[in-house]
Amino acid sequence: MPHIDPRRKKNLLSRLSRIEGQVRGISRMIEEDQYCIDVLNQISAVRSALNSVGQIMLEGHIKGCVTDAIKHDRGDASIDELMQAIRKYTF
Amino acid sequence: MPHIDPRRKKNLLSRLSRIEGQVRGISRMIEEDQYCIDVLNQISAVRSALNSVGQIMLEGHIKGCVTDAIKHDRGDASIDELMQAIRKYTF
Amino acid sequence: MPHIDPRRKKNLLSRLSRIEGQVRGISRMIEEDQYCIDVLNQISAVRSALNSVGQIMLEGHIKGCVTDAIKHDRGDASIDELMQAIRKYTF
Amino acid sequence: MPHIDPRRKKNLLSRLSRIEGQVRGISRMIEEDQYCIDVLNQISAVRSALNSVGQIMLEGHIKGCVTDAIKHDRGDASIDELMQAIRKYTF
Repeated sequence: MPHIDPRRKKNLLSRLSRIEGQVRGISRMIEEDQYCIDVLNQISAVRSALNSVGQIMLEGHIKGCVTDAIKHDRGDASIDELMQAIRKYTF
Repeated sequence: MPHIDPRRKKNLLSRLSRIEGQVRGISRMIEEDQYCIDVLNQISAVRSALNSVGQIMLEGHIKGCVTDAIKHDRGDASIDELMQAIRKYTF
Repeated sequence: MPHIDPRRKKNLLSRLSRIEGQVRGISRMIEEDQYCIDVLNQISAVRSALNSVGQIMLEGHIKGCVTDAIKHDRGDASIDELMQAIRKYTF
Repeated sequence: MPHIDPRRKKNLLSRLSRIEGQVRGISRMIEEDQYCIDVLNQISAVRSALNSVGQIMLEGHIKGCVTDAIKHDRGDASIDELMQAIRKYTF
């Protein structure tokens, strides 16, 4: 069973390829000695883009794997694992 | 006047090139249908790596541009700009 | 049906009462002109304490309400609502 | 020398007293078994309010103590200390 549905997958891959380009862009900004604040703003934009990828993955995981586990009475372990992942992002 | 000193620059560029590779790795994980939680953990690792780059930039900016502005009595505008950048990361 | 089980409730209430005291402590620090960095560290401690409360609530919510909704085939709406709450903390 | 100017102080104290009330409000919501998502939203509101206090403190610290240190050639130690405080909030 695939963990991510095909449409979501395509969306995620295109977001990640854009992020890769943005990271390369930050390297270029630093090489060209651009103003620190502009670099910082660009880093924060990549951070947001990455957070969106995280969110989409998280939602997919909850609607897929976690939902499945709950329906088969294996919810608790799955939710504990989920909470650990959420904690890395948030808390 | 360059905004980033050469050693710091090299350090930042090597971090960013590693981040680029990590982002590519996440794409591969998604293509190969790896477990969502593993992907989420990898995204959170990139987030941390990116935050370190942000921190290094921020410290360099304060020790360079902001310090300079303060010494030339242009501190307030520089600190307002700095606060806006910090807010994007934190608050 | 109560949303929070009694033991969790007691735990949460004692954490919140401690947080209330910590917030009052920050006011006192400011009144007494204590060093900004010490105040900032104290604010960040309260932030962490509050995040723990958020985590406990979130986990309880997923193990209670969301699990329940999923078992009764009302999972999607419940997960959408959950994602909105998570987003406020993280992303 | 006070670290916080009087107007800023009054502003901070009134914010903190409001936050104290909000924390008390969360306790009440939990005691009354209100819906978890509403409690989570309220926690996130307090988090934002606390972040604003942190921001105001941080800005005051940079415009006061750090600026002062830089003007007296003690900038580096002051900025290192500042970076540690910032890291607790952000990264």
